[in-house]
Amino acid sequence: MNIAVYPGSFDPCTNGHLDIIKRVSAIFDKVIVAVLCNSGKTPLFSVEERVEILKKATSDIPNIEIVSFSGLLVDFLKENNAKIVIKGLRAVSDFEYEFQMALTNRKLCDNVETLFISASTEYMFLSSSIVKEIASYNGDLSGLVPDELIPIIKSRFGFVNN
Amino acid sequence: MNIAVYPGSFDPCTNGHLDIIKRVSAIFDKVIVAVLCNSGKTPLFSVEERVEILKKATSDIPNIEIVSFSGLLVDFLKENNAKIVIKGLRAVSDFEYEFQMALTNRKLCDNVETLFISASTEYMFLSSSIVKEIASYNGDLSGLVPDELIPIIKSRFGFVNN
Amino acid sequence: MNIAVYPGSFDPCTNGHLDIIKRVSAIFDKVIVAVLCNSGKTPLFSVEERVEILKKATSDIPNIEIVSFSGLLVDFLKENNAKIVIKGLRAVSDFEYEFQMALTNRKLCDNVETLFISASTEYMFLSSSIVKEIASYNGDLSGLVPDELIPIIKSRFGFVNN
Amino acid sequence: MNIAVYPGSFDPCTNGHLDIIKRVSAIFDKVIVAVLCNSGKTPLFSVEERVEILKKATSDIPNIEIVSFSGLLVDFLKENNAKIVIKGLRAVSDFEYEFQMALTNRKLCDNVETLFISASTEYMFLSSSIVKEIASYNGDLSGLVPDELIPIIKSRFGFVNN
Amino acid sequence: MNIAVYPGSFDPCTNGHLDIIKRVSAIFDKVIVAVLCNSGKTPLFSVEERVEILKKATSDIPNIEIVSFSGLLVDFLKENNAKIVIKGLRAVSDFEYEFQMALTNRKLCDNVETLFISASTEYMFLSSSIVKEIASYNGDLSGLVPDELIPIIKSRFGFVNN
Amino acid sequence: MNIAVYPGSFDPCTNGHLDIIKRVSAIFDKVIVAVLCNSGKTPLFSVEERVEILKKATSDIPNIEIVSFSGLLVDFLKENNAKIVIKGLRAVSDFEYEFQMALTNRKLCDNVETLFISASTEYMFLSSSIVKEIASYNGDLSGLVPDELIPIIKSRFGFVNN
Repeated sequence: MNIAVYPGSFDPCTNGHLDIIKRVSAIFDKVIVAVLCNSGKTPLFSVEERVEILKKATSDIPNIEIVSFSGLLVDFLKENNAKIVIKGLRAVSDFEYEFQMALTNRKLCDNVETLFISASTEYMFLSSSIVKEIASYNGDLSGLVPDELIPIIKSRFGFVNN
Repeated sequence: MNIAVYPGSFDPCTNGHLDIIKRVSAIFDKVIVAVLCNSGKTPLFSVEERVEILKKATSDIPNIEIVSFSGLLVDFLKENNAKIVIKGLRAVSDFEYEFQMALTNRKLCDNVETLFISASTEYMFLSSSIVKEIASYNGDLSGLVPDELIPIIKSRFGFVNN
Repeated sequence: MNIAVYPGSFDPCTNGHLDIIKRVSAIFDKVIVAVLCNSGKTPLFSVEERVEILKKATSDIPNIEIVSFSGLLVDFLKENNAKIVIKGLRAVSDFEYEFQMALTNRKLCDNVETLFISASTEYMFLSSSIVKEIASYNGDLSGLVPDELIPIIKSRFGFVNN
Repeated sequence: MNIAVYPGSFDPCTNGHLDIIKRVSAIFDKVIVAVLCNSGKTPLFSVEERVEILKKATSDIPNIEIVSFSGLLVDFLKENNAKIVIKGLRAVSDFEYEFQMALTNRKLCDNVETLFISASTEYMFLSSSIVKEIASYNGDLSGLVPDELIPIIKSRFGFVNN
Repeated sequence: MNIAVYPGSFDPCTNGHLDIIKRVSAIFDKVIVAVLCNSGKTPLFSVEERVEILKKATSDIPNIEIVSFSGLLVDFLKENNAKIVIKGLRAVSDFEYEFQMALTNRKLCDNVETLFISASTEYMFLSSSIVKEIASYNGDLSGLVPDELIPIIKSRFGFVNN
Repeated sequence: MNIAVYPGSFDPCTNGHLDIIKRVSAIFDKVIVAVLCNSGKTPLFSVEERVEILKKATSDIPNIEIVSFSGLLVDFLKENNAKIVIKGLRAVSDFEYEFQMALTNRKLCDNVETLFISASTEYMFLSSSIVKEIASYNGDLSGLVPDELIPIIKSRFGFVNN
């Protein structure tokens, strides 16, 4: 069975993430979305909240599992009997860093392979950071994240849902 | 009337910024330099000081306005009846990020256009960060910022003006 | 009056070119589309044909002029009393080359400014070369070039219009 | 069944290609190596020869098929009931072009996905062009292509096998 | 006498740094490794420790000197009668920033030249940050840093040496 | 003795090339400018002419030698007892290709090192191709190539010297 692990912070998950999740789940037997507990940063949503949000947003996809993880990605892969990592790519800066991580992970574990998939053109500009920046000024988030997530994100920035 | 908005932190403004301001003011009817209040960072100069410095440095340009702004750039544009954003480009890293912001701004507001202009070759290496790093070691700032700004920057880093 | 010159080969013009032409004509007083006679390559369409195709495709834009040109772009600008060049950008490779040309043109003529505009996300992948490659295998061109151009391009590659 | 198509010219195939073929065949049910008939260029080896060379070099991989193809990649995928394209990446220039092709292929066929895989560090510099350039000066090809291919390549450049 | 200065944080030094030091010491009369006191960050190792670690790791190289420095690099070069800076390059992001620093240093001091040297393929992915990230999860550091450094780094992250 | 080899086509040599030659000759004991006989292209100037032009333009530099070469660069280095290659860098595209060549040359010969040096800001845009393109339209070459070379280049494109 081909298991692909799609790791990330997903703080919050965007329509770009969901697009990649859908596309990847169509080509692998199983996709594990691995939500990173990054102790270094103060997230907008807790890991538990992010897992919950992703579960709701992907409830129509049968071959998917949403879990949190911390530690080295290669250890997570071993524990889950997986050897494929999926990373979305938007632009060159992404590529540089992800390339470096892919080579590092292969150094740490020989049979781990990272496969890169390009973002769809309509989400090429989209990132969690941009969503948070727009939200912090009460800007329009429609089309950027799932509709039901918009009031939740906005309330985190102190704006009354409208 | 063609109004171009040139947004940035300008902390401090460099000769590279002034070069772009001059070149842009020669091709648009009016240029609004929008000085960003970035609440997240501790600036070297307050927004009011940065506006003042830019006003002095551009006093010979008739079709220019220097204002501070916070919030979303697209909202600032609407309030000022402008739809053109000007961004200077130095190198690929600049380009990636600015490209992403340009696409985001078009998503938020259909008729906003970002036009990129290349830095002049002699300022290709210059940024506010590099000015601050050199100043922090009392290095030579001549040619990097307006001459009258040099003692002011140096005094911020605790060096007696010489 | 702000005159922007948008130079290119346009062999053939794509929906990406037309998107940029529309956006640029909305922000400048006049746009001159300058169709390059490139003696070095055998084009799919003659310069006269390319001018004609662009004229038809932009017939609803009032402040536009389509002309052919050969020689140095800076000379063309002087003859047309223009100092603004517009270049569309899709990706880093584009950027590198265009940046170099912009700096060269400023060296040749002090007051020429090149402004870069990003392709819309939906045309980020599109180029005349890709249109020709797809057409050469009788692939689907819909959405890539104006509909009325599709049978004309296909017939150039020996396919009966369908 | 997950079928991955790995297209390329393979003129000649390098140890970098073979490394990617091995790694990809370990993660997909079946890999089809699609050798491109590029009518525009004069190849060093005919398509039939290239297919033969690849068959020998991959004879120990059970889930692989080597075939020639011409035309649009998306048509080849449909005929082979495949929807996954694999492309190796070495550097940014690769990435730019391949990204553009991936977006084009998705435009031509909705459910085609391109997955990028990074070259191994030891083959990061390697390409068919570099092999040919070194061979043309009778340089040392060991480690760059399969050993048994070295005398065949050298003889194409008029050097007696040694 | 040709003196090359190789500046960096070396927190900790990696096998990639040592590879470059060895290669550079083979082509210049003398190499000064300049360990940066960066007051802004909390390092894993103090400057004195980093100098000590580098001295041990390079004890077999005769024409080398390891010193700490703070301040502007151009001032350090003058004090040491040197005009050549060596910087290792791994990827495009490195290149952009280092290019900018090289041009800045030439602006500050006319006769300073920065020479870039590419990392060896096997260390292309390696950086001090990646070493620290792997170490923080008690991952395998073999091949990434000198063997004798591994228990020292691990103990800094609270792991008992094994 | 440190011998640096600076290889290139120099068809024609530009002020950018001469700037790098001057800077490199100031930091190495001897510089060999290696003018490439590229049989594949029709050059503007023969190899003999290019050597002659470079000799005149560098007659004031004592530690320089101008020679033609064909074949593999690593073979040329061995014959000349040199192990340092110097390459000028202007931008990312340059970097990618040159990086690949540097890694290839190290693969072919262990102790060959390529050192990259950035073009001066004023020559960042300059290349032999751009000189030829401008010359082909009788454009202004002053500042781009040595003054005495201008009429010679122009006459090659059929323009009477003025």
